[in-house]
Amino acid sequence: MNKIIVAGIGPGSFEQMTAAALKALEEADVIIGYTVYADLVRKHFPDKVFITTPMRKEVERCEEAFVQAEAGKTAVLICSGDAGVYGLAGLIFEIGEKHPGTQIVVLPGVTAALSGAALLGAPLIHDFCLISLSDLLTPWEKIVARLHAAAEADFVIVLYNPGSRGRKDHLSKACDILLRYRSPETVCGVTVSIGREGESSRILSLAELKDYQADMFTTVFIGNSQTREAGGKMVTPRGYLYE
Amino acid sequence: MNKIIVAGIGPGSFEQMTAAALKALEEADVIIGYTVYADLVRKHFPDKVFITTPMRKEVERCEEAFVQAEAGKTAVLICSGDAGVYGLAGLIFEIGEKHPGTQIVVLPGVTAALSGAALLGAPLIHDFCLISLSDLLTPWEKIVARLHAAAEADFVIVLYNPGSRGRKDHLSKACDILLRYRSPETVCGVTVSIGREGESSRILSLAELKDYQADMFTTVFIGNSQTREAGGKMVTPRGYLYE
Repeated sequence: MNKIIVAGIGPGSFEQMTAAALKALEEADVIIGYTVYADLVRKHFPDKVFITTPMRKEVERCEEAFVQAEAGKTAVLICSGDAGVYGLAGLIFEIGEKHPGTQIVVLPGVTAALSGAALLGAPLIHDFCLISLSDLLTPWEKIVARLHAAAEADFVIVLYNPGSRGRKDHLSKACDILLRYRSPETVCGVTVSIGREGESSRILSLAELKDYQADMFTTVFIGNSQTREAGGKMVTPRGYLYE
Repeated sequence: MNKIIVAGIGPGSFEQMTAAALKALEEADVIIGYTVYADLVRKHFPDKVFITTPMRKEVERCEEAFVQAEAGKTAVLICSGDAGVYGLAGLIFEIGEKHPGTQIVVLPGVTAALSGAALLGAPLIHDFCLISLSDLLTPWEKIVARLHAAAEADFVIVLYNPGSRGRKDHLSKACDILLRYRSPETVCGVTVSIGREGESSRILSLAELKDYQADMFTTVFIGNSQTREAGGKMVTPRGYLYE
């Protein structure tokens, strides 16, 4: 049976890929991905055939995987982080409805919420949610409603896509909403380019976060009411009752 | 400097550990963990020294890591999934405030939300949240408030600790809350013993989920209003606007 493997490659460094993803890449006939992520992998697998497509060409990228699989190739479609978190695993299954003869296997990976949390300390020890601030495919009103709900219910919040050239003020607007429910002193964190050149992280207050200039390499963490700084790290306690 | 590495080992299978976690285990002088998870690792590293502690002895487990590190050993504390998601990374930093001479490094891993999602298909393609139904350290009222907020704002929801011998009805109560906001036909999924013997997954409706008997090896996924079944898999579309 034809087969497509959709593999999350983690934040970018070789060390944060799973053994299963590494094995899939070793056995691939062709590796398909967004140009930037393909370059992260290519240096470790210089002898492989790569097919790369630019940003926003996600449908074409997935369709190419079916073309390759149906030509009998072992096709591995790579995504940064986890292919199943804001990644292409969904689109592959949707397109796959027209290709019932092709088996789809998803290999999970370390998404930016997890790799960024490890850099900052331990912000995700209690209930948390992931919200993307990109309104390309989601109405902004829906994003706003989620920010209100998450803030009110004291979730730790991880923001994906907090900023880009076209969305300079989304993070600031999000902070305005969060500040209605949480103290300006709430412990927050940002990580940039996790596992890649220029990796950095910083702990800051919610008030400071409002003025932070995020870009497409930034992941943002907003603590809950119990999150604090411990030894220079962002740490959320594992409960409420024991304090 | 003394060093403790806190490593997430993923759901249980060797293949789903990261290269960094595997390297840390290879280089460890002593591996510390909950008995069940230590046994998952031991078979791959039979020559290592293991120190195991039973369930609910988390503080003792972390303190043992400092004892070992301060004796000059390279200590690796292992957690299932990701050490930073309902794991021991937080407690280690909190206890670490009393041990400023010991460096703490967290290696992220594949948490059950990600490995379970990959088994079920692609349920986490849009905004989602993780909620633990364990009320050991969190007031039940807080858990209920989060279920209301997450359901109303149309998050995909992943439930950790959906049931145990002492909490047989938590999942059913949670479903009652979710059913106030979502159709009984909402596409849901359960995974059991991911990456281990007896691994299984099943897609079912929210109405069916209400009567499902979850145990401590179960992870539960509740779709958002757009989640559907595609080719036998649970798939959440990547947006709202394009449909």
